[in-house]
Amino acid sequence: MDLSDTATPALILDRGKMETNLVGMERVSQRLGVPLRPHGKTPKCKPIAQRLMRGGAIGLSVSTLREAEEYFSAGVEDLFYAVGMVPNKLDRAMALMKAGARMSFLLDSAAAARAIADQLPAGAPPLPIVVEIDVDGYRTGINPADQELFELVGIFRDCDRMAFEGIMSYGGRSYELGEPSAVADLAEKHRQALVDTKHRLEGLGLECKTVSFGSTPAVLHARSMEGVTELRCGIYVFQDLFQAAIGCCRPDDIALSVLTTIIGIRESQNIIVVDAGSLAMSKDASTRGTEHDAGYGLVVSASGNEFQPGLYLETTNQEIGLVTSLSGQPLNFSRFSIGEQLRILPNHADLTAAAHELYLVVDGGHEIVDRWERFNFW
Amino acid sequence: MDLSDTATPALILDRGKMETNLVGMERVSQRLGVPLRPHGKTPKCKPIAQRLMRGGAIGLSVSTLREAEEYFSAGVEDLFYAVGMVPNKLDRAMALMKAGARMSFLLDSAAAARAIADQLPAGAPPLPIVVEIDVDGYRTGINPADQELFELVGIFRDCDRMAFEGIMSYGGRSYELGEPSAVADLAEKHRQALVDTKHRLEGLGLECKTVSFGSTPAVLHARSMEGVTELRCGIYVFQDLFQAAIGCCRPDDIALSVLTTIIGIRESQNIIVVDAGSLAMSKDASTRGTEHDAGYGLVVSASGNEFQPGLYLETTNQEIGLVTSLSGQPLNFSRFSIGEQLRILPNHADLTAAAHELYLVVDGGHEIVDRWERFNFW
Repeated sequence: MDLSDTATPALILDRGKMETNLVGMERVSQRLGVPLRPHGKTPKCKPIAQRLMRGGAIGLSVSTLREAEEYFSAGVEDLFYAVGMVPNKLDRAMALMKAGARMSFLLDSAAAARAIADQLPAGAPPLPIVVEIDVDGYRTGINPADQELFELVGIFRDCDRMAFEGIMSYGGRSYELGEPSAVADLAEKHRQALVDTKHRLEGLGLECKTVSFGSTPAVLHARSMEGVTELRCGIYVFQDLFQAAIGCCRPDDIALSVLTTIIGIRESQNIIVVDAGSLAMSKDASTRGTEHDAGYGLVVSASGNEFQPGLYLETTNQEIGLVTSLSGQPLNFSRFSIGEQLRILPNHADLTAAAHELYLVVDGGHEIVDRWERFNFW
Repeated sequence: MDLSDTATPALILDRGKMETNLVGMERVSQRLGVPLRPHGKTPKCKPIAQRLMRGGAIGLSVSTLREAEEYFSAGVEDLFYAVGMVPNKLDRAMALMKAGARMSFLLDSAAAARAIADQLPAGAPPLPIVVEIDVDGYRTGINPADQELFELVGIFRDCDRMAFEGIMSYGGRSYELGEPSAVADLAEKHRQALVDTKHRLEGLGLECKTVSFGSTPAVLHARSMEGVTELRCGIYVFQDLFQAAIGCCRPDDIALSVLTTIIGIRESQNIIVVDAGSLAMSKDASTRGTEHDAGYGLVVSASGNEFQPGLYLETTNQEIGLVTSLSGQPLNFSRFSIGEQLRILPNHADLTAAAHELYLVVDGGHEIVDRWERFNFW
């Protein structure tokens, strides 16, 4: 089937571009000498997970227990649930472990550790725990300089229902930096904090088998990951306009796009109306603060070529998008007609992908070579 | 089952609050003497559609053909696809008509009318068409003062494959106004333009059976809808924080919320971490430009009560949300604990609902009295 026969809006995945992105990150991992644990929250898709594992990944990170269940059923056995664990998720998590999954779980406070310990049944295999440390006050994690870390150590020593596996940090601030050397410095700061904390914890008698670090920009720019045991990255699989805006890829590397149909042409308002709105693209406007503002997405031709001058999705309503020129110059309306297809590159691939239930897979051209299901929701 | 036993994040629908909203709009419709054609894009849910029809709706508006198919299978026979029709959607649309649905379709240009006419098979029943007029340059529609309207009239006269049904307009600018009298003026401007256009078209020999107007704020504030034959509104079904911000409801009227669990407490940063992020809430931040900025949502207790001083979802990542106080004052951390549930009221109910596959229905309390499926996607 050809894309031109496809109902729109639809999510298109260019397999060749994805493959280039995957190979690129696999080379980074080899150069750094540290294996990948890619983040399954980006693709939420079994064939992509299987490809990641074939590329040398030691397992996957997940952001929902549904991802864990689906990936496990696809043959991925080593799964790290990288969102703070809470008691009301234990039943589902333990069912996965009972089925044979090698799970690990995130904690970042003594309060959470105690709440979990209180709920764990006696006699069950111990729950593997990775502790998140907060290196730069980004979001979550325990400050390694804080007394609370010692409190946590005490809890793990005293409680045989949890098995301390190691530590992790998330370089989320790398998304706020553009300059590669600043991102490399951030990666080094995290690496150093992780290695220092590992040594302190081992001095206290807690072995750190896992030292995990993540964020696509930080890993791409890192000078060294010595002492780190795994790299957690996700967005590199598809790349997106925000990654391009911060210099982590070129727009041409973006493997994901939304196929849309022109449903209106309003020359008097200098806009083209398309059937991809807030639901098909998401409301993510993360390029807005950058020098590469693309509104809700960069509009390219149905074959994926950029227009000169550029077009972007300026406004979205639920099922309607308004496209105009980035420069504000009048559009060349002779190039567009009702019923014609365009594609839109997303600001944030994770959120745009999550708006769809299916990837229509292409290989450069117009032909749909495969259809891959996504597992959305929780 | 009780909400406290529910996996989070989850979408909660308070049936009693929804009922109050529905009855309120039914009274407005009665007062104006014009029946409702509610917009099915808000609920995307069969039991809600059936309740809307029992309340006197003459049919539904839909924003996707999937909604049309699902609502038709739920017994709703009169369906208006309120997004510009294009040739590549004709097959699905005509299959619905063949199955017995009374469909109508939107056009707003001579180019689209010609493109559709070219694709319609001879001998099929004529495609019922409603033309959108552009009253205030909001988004789509044909300017009724434009020569193109006469061109359209000519196309409908000459083409027996389309049946002209009438006209519609959308008062989307009502969302940009706060003052009720300004919204009422906008509604009157649309009504007047619709009635004038109807008379002009009838003078040219085209009967206007349908004169359709919509947007929840405009209908709520309208002084008269004389000459209008149906009211298209959607968001009133659930209401949301943006509707509250522009004075169309109180926060307490909002029937939709997201149940979330506290997964982290960071006193040093004055934040509570919850498991509802960008995917559970959407990235809609539409209250941000108003005096009632709620970030990505207003945080209330698990039973739905507002906190004093108020809490809001300040930051979202994919599956993580950061909650802090609206005032910037330190939170009273003794009130919160890991594993505890909260609820978050959405900025934009349509987008938050679309992030979930299921409504957990409650009736004021904590008990789940029903589970209603949504049909997302296209």
